[in-house]
Amino acid sequence: MIIVLKPNVTQDEIDHIVGKIKSLNLQPHVSKGQYRTIITVIGDEDIIREQPLEAISGVESVKPILKPYKLASKETHPDRTIIRVGDIEIGGDKIVLVAGPCAVEGEREIIEHAKMVKQAGASMLRAGAYKPRSSPYTFQGYGALGLKYLAKAKEETGLPIVTEVMDPRDVELVAQYADVLQVGTRNMQNFNLLKELGKINKPILLKRGMSATINEFLMSAEYILSQGNKQVILCPRGIRTFEDITRNTLDVGAVPVLKDFSHLPVVCDPSHAMGLKDYVTSAALAYVAAGADGIMVEAHPNPEEAMSDGQQTINFEQLVELKKKLASVALALGRGIY
Amino acid sequence: MIIVLKPNVTQDEIDHIVGKIKSLNLQPHVSKGQYRTIITVIGDEDIIREQPLEAISGVESVKPILKPYKLASKETHPDRTIIRVGDIEIGGDKIVLVAGPCAVEGEREIIEHAKMVKQAGASMLRAGAYKPRSSPYTFQGYGALGLKYLAKAKEETGLPIVTEVMDPRDVELVAQYADVLQVGTRNMQNFNLLKELGKINKPILLKRGMSATINEFLMSAEYILSQGNKQVILCPRGIRTFEDITRNTLDVGAVPVLKDFSHLPVVCDPSHAMGLKDYVTSAALAYVAAGADGIMVEAHPNPEEAMSDGQQTINFEQLVELKKKLASVALALGRGIY
Amino acid sequence: MIIVLKPNVTQDEIDHIVGKIKSLNLQPHVSKGQYRTIITVIGDEDIIREQPLEAISGVESVKPILKPYKLASKETHPDRTIIRVGDIEIGGDKIVLVAGPCAVEGEREIIEHAKMVKQAGASMLRAGAYKPRSSPYTFQGYGALGLKYLAKAKEETGLPIVTEVMDPRDVELVAQYADVLQVGTRNMQNFNLLKELGKINKPILLKRGMSATINEFLMSAEYILSQGNKQVILCPRGIRTFEDITRNTLDVGAVPVLKDFSHLPVVCDPSHAMGLKDYVTSAALAYVAAGADGIMVEAHPNPEEAMSDGQQTINFEQLVELKKKLASVALALGRGIY
Amino acid sequence: MIIVLKPNVTQDEIDHIVGKIKSLNLQPHVSKGQYRTIITVIGDEDIIREQPLEAISGVESVKPILKPYKLASKETHPDRTIIRVGDIEIGGDKIVLVAGPCAVEGEREIIEHAKMVKQAGASMLRAGAYKPRSSPYTFQGYGALGLKYLAKAKEETGLPIVTEVMDPRDVELVAQYADVLQVGTRNMQNFNLLKELGKINKPILLKRGMSATINEFLMSAEYILSQGNKQVILCPRGIRTFEDITRNTLDVGAVPVLKDFSHLPVVCDPSHAMGLKDYVTSAALAYVAAGADGIMVEAHPNPEEAMSDGQQTINFEQLVELKKKLASVALALGRGIY
Repeated sequence: MIIVLKPNVTQDEIDHIVGKIKSLNLQPHVSKGQYRTIITVIGDEDIIREQPLEAISGVESVKPILKPYKLASKETHPDRTIIRVGDIEIGGDKIVLVAGPCAVEGEREIIEHAKMVKQAGASMLRAGAYKPRSSPYTFQGYGALGLKYLAKAKEETGLPIVTEVMDPRDVELVAQYADVLQVGTRNMQNFNLLKELGKINKPILLKRGMSATINEFLMSAEYILSQGNKQVILCPRGIRTFEDITRNTLDVGAVPVLKDFSHLPVVCDPSHAMGLKDYVTSAALAYVAAGADGIMVEAHPNPEEAMSDGQQTINFEQLVELKKKLASVALALGRGIY
Repeated sequence: MIIVLKPNVTQDEIDHIVGKIKSLNLQPHVSKGQYRTIITVIGDEDIIREQPLEAISGVESVKPILKPYKLASKETHPDRTIIRVGDIEIGGDKIVLVAGPCAVEGEREIIEHAKMVKQAGASMLRAGAYKPRSSPYTFQGYGALGLKYLAKAKEETGLPIVTEVMDPRDVELVAQYADVLQVGTRNMQNFNLLKELGKINKPILLKRGMSATINEFLMSAEYILSQGNKQVILCPRGIRTFEDITRNTLDVGAVPVLKDFSHLPVVCDPSHAMGLKDYVTSAALAYVAAGADGIMVEAHPNPEEAMSDGQQTINFEQLVELKKKLASVALALGRGIY
Repeated sequence: MIIVLKPNVTQDEIDHIVGKIKSLNLQPHVSKGQYRTIITVIGDEDIIREQPLEAISGVESVKPILKPYKLASKETHPDRTIIRVGDIEIGGDKIVLVAGPCAVEGEREIIEHAKMVKQAGASMLRAGAYKPRSSPYTFQGYGALGLKYLAKAKEETGLPIVTEVMDPRDVELVAQYADVLQVGTRNMQNFNLLKELGKINKPILLKRGMSATINEFLMSAEYILSQGNKQVILCPRGIRTFEDITRNTLDVGAVPVLKDFSHLPVVCDPSHAMGLKDYVTSAALAYVAAGADGIMVEAHPNPEEAMSDGQQTINFEQLVELKKKLASVALALGRGIY
Repeated sequence: MIIVLKPNVTQDEIDHIVGKIKSLNLQPHVSKGQYRTIITVIGDEDIIREQPLEAISGVESVKPILKPYKLASKETHPDRTIIRVGDIEIGGDKIVLVAGPCAVEGEREIIEHAKMVKQAGASMLRAGAYKPRSSPYTFQGYGALGLKYLAKAKEETGLPIVTEVMDPRDVELVAQYADVLQVGTRNMQNFNLLKELGKINKPILLKRGMSATINEFLMSAEYILSQGNKQVILCPRGIRTFEDITRNTLDVGAVPVLKDFSHLPVVCDPSHAMGLKDYVTSAALAYVAAGADGIMVEAHPNPEEAMSDGQQTINFEQLVELKKKLASVALALGRGIY
């Protein structure tokens, strides 16, 4: 931690700050420059992070040196984490393709959609039973019933299931059905939900918040990890910026940064990032070229009839084509694909 | 709803779209221009909003005409909503000043802080028992015990209490103690929490999400209103942008827009918007000059010792000064202050 | 300057960095903490700012301590700058209201508009002869002829003229006619233009770039100041964010920061910030409540017929009302108005 | 153009608007819905775009249907534009790699750098003679002398030259030396510069403005095209968002959109997008996977000694590696590389 003092700081103020740091059993080192005095603090940054140093008279700014997350960091965990879902290893040499409709649309429907997903060559099924919808007047998902339909789809196809949980009260139930529990972008900082997910023993796919910084994203992973669940998959899905042609702004640049800062696997969602079906394939290829360990897309046999997100949903032919191109780019980068 | 077709749309595609609209019992009107054909749809926009029209072949874009919220809109509710908390009317001629520490720091502490708040001339007390913290390793609040301490503070001072609820499981308990339940910025789209809050009969102070558009903000209010609770206070608190000197970017421009689009009262939080105590007063005055019905600030007798948010917390003298200046600006605008 | 080293930095790398700093005649101070080694550099930060320290092996990050501008800073120039335009002092106790149409629309027109501006009680006239338009196919302004028309308007009304210069080749000509030369938002980092403006002896109203940070804004002021022209007025005018109801996002929060960091006067433009005429007054009052030294608005006797920016242009009655309300708020804050 | 009227619009107001549209020789079509009346305008959208319709009483909003650019649009120019620079065709099947130092650092230096670039397998040399620097106190480039040094480097290596022009007064001179003239991000809306560049007969590499929308980017291309110069290369280079770990936010999502909206070739700059050398390769691969026609990177034999931008500059070994990986990904996508 580095504390920069104001140009007109008094010796009394400096003494007060130094005393405060020492009282926390930390070592202050004062350097007086021509224009500024700065205090370097040696010791456990966690202790001092909680102190409102910027509220102290004479302090201009406080600059942390260490990142606030530990368990998510590559520094304390240099080996890459590999998460097993059935026979699939997420975060290893081979990339994974997850696909499926936005929402579970019924029992018959989800079975049909799962078969399509399998036939197109994807390895896991995604679909929402609980749907966070921005309007209270639109379809809110099949809920618990949807989970049962997903179980049927898995039974029929063998595809592992990725599905969202929105409420701490539903974690136990969803964990009975899902192979991977998804946290949506709007819940990335729903800390009570994260804590509950940290107590179960299933992989969590954590979507990046719409305007979360990379550090905040990793802090949310830390919440889950800190409760004991070590299986967190990071899922970039576009961020919100001034650009409005696409639904969000594709955050491909986050991929090499996440792989550099953290040991956790990264599976990306180009459907929500772009919001328009014709751009999904390009976006998926870009994520993988930048180092992603997998891709999760919305796919539906007839996007025009999809109960939600139809405009960003690809159809069967596009999914087949996507798989083929992903395989080709993965190979070019020395990786395989499931 | 207006549907813009692609330049090379075929007659078959047009017929298909027209058929789809008619099948929903809506009236399509086709206009062929030199460069584009557009279809205007007359009828209930809610019905068509759910359809993934953009997924249909031949469609270039879809432009909604109506706003997706109704209960929050001034169109369907032209009279301004006034929310009563004890003797205070929020949203009327007089503005209100809410103040207090970021967190409840103990029983003795919150009573002392409440007395300070009262003495400085503020009319309501804010303080968090449940604290959404970005790190799992920092103080997470006193929880249920904090609510009891708040009750004591209210008993001692008579100040109504504003406090946050983060979890649908806590709504009932918090509602027993709080006069106003606050939804934090990270939970603005925690739809299950909003639904629970829609079922109680207490005012809700809904903070704007860090990167929520004004329309999304009003849609979240709509979630609460749609469940029956008509007492929603909108709380702008800064948004996230590229500027990093301040913690957030002060969203004063949202105030006249919210007052124009909605009948709900607007109480603003300059502390989180600016994040630096020396700028809080200017920001508060700006919010009120733009039309806010009240201000909620973080204040503490000794910000340097505050358990959280010290750098943005004003002290007693600053709170007294703020009250005085707010009164002066309110008067200049033809309003009073509690 | 503080240099944070990577966790695995070698002694050879540290020696190399220390050697490099010493070779620049600066003093390095190495502190080894538990997790990181940091090097504090004492001495002229300008020298080291030019060095690509982040490119050196072993360096994790570099944190500057001092701001990169000097002449614009309150640190080196504690007294507030007051800029005189005729009888008006910009940056003193009294705020100033500048008004006029977006563009000079003809000789007769600008004289009529100037008379309206004067009658409504504004103290300076704004209007563009050179217009930066985002489309090459729209009206580009009257150019040199427009400057002559402005001179006529000044002759008739006595109002000082604020008008934009877009091209370094036009600086000399515009300076002959304008009392204040405006730099538009798109030219805030047109450094060659800024250099030319630094060589003349007329006040410059420098608009904030659409996505410029406050530090970049002050660096652009520094460009002008560094060439000798000390008369720079800072003009916040909204910034670009994700919010799209308003044309830009009102940057009121920048006002107290600019007044704190710099001695230069601040005159704000609520018309471009909001982009919608009905919100201009609220925005103007907010800017002044936050500490602005003046307001510049687009006004036109008949906005519906304005040649550009009509949707954000207020009419005569609204201008009269704005003047009255500004006077009232200025008074409440202990200031006057011209 | 679609005009949405306010809910309480009067018949007089409707008549006034209809009259105004007819007076422009355009055809209005009025549809009255349950909640809103809308007017569809058939005819030349350019005529009505200039009218401040939103300033008219009774108008709620105006929604354009057509894009404001024509020459840059794929609609009016369905064949892709290929730009020839020496033997290289930009925008065809093969992608191009442009590399070089941020700035020309001297005659001997640029020759050495050009040889390195050639040896690593890049096909064009980039380096700045004129440097737009955010501080007036830092190295501003060699100017005209730098252009002569670039000519020497071209003579020695045969590499075509890409170099920036910042000032309309320098266009003629730069055009004598450069094979491609670059417009920097800060000048994307320097309209007078764009107009001058539209009058020469050399390819222009137009960088995207830091916060320019895709439509604004294409409008700036339109400025050049509208003056007669048809050789415009679009250069995404990152945009400004809230994320601050990287210098900018990689705008890979813009690539498929630009290729869809426009016929112009797209060459991307991952160095400025990321700002950190270790992430440049991943970013470059992502741009190409998304459809870019080329990559332009900053490279230097010893980035630590580079006169500017060292932290984002790759070295010889990294450039060799980048070329190899680009070739591999290009091949996987059915393309080649120069």
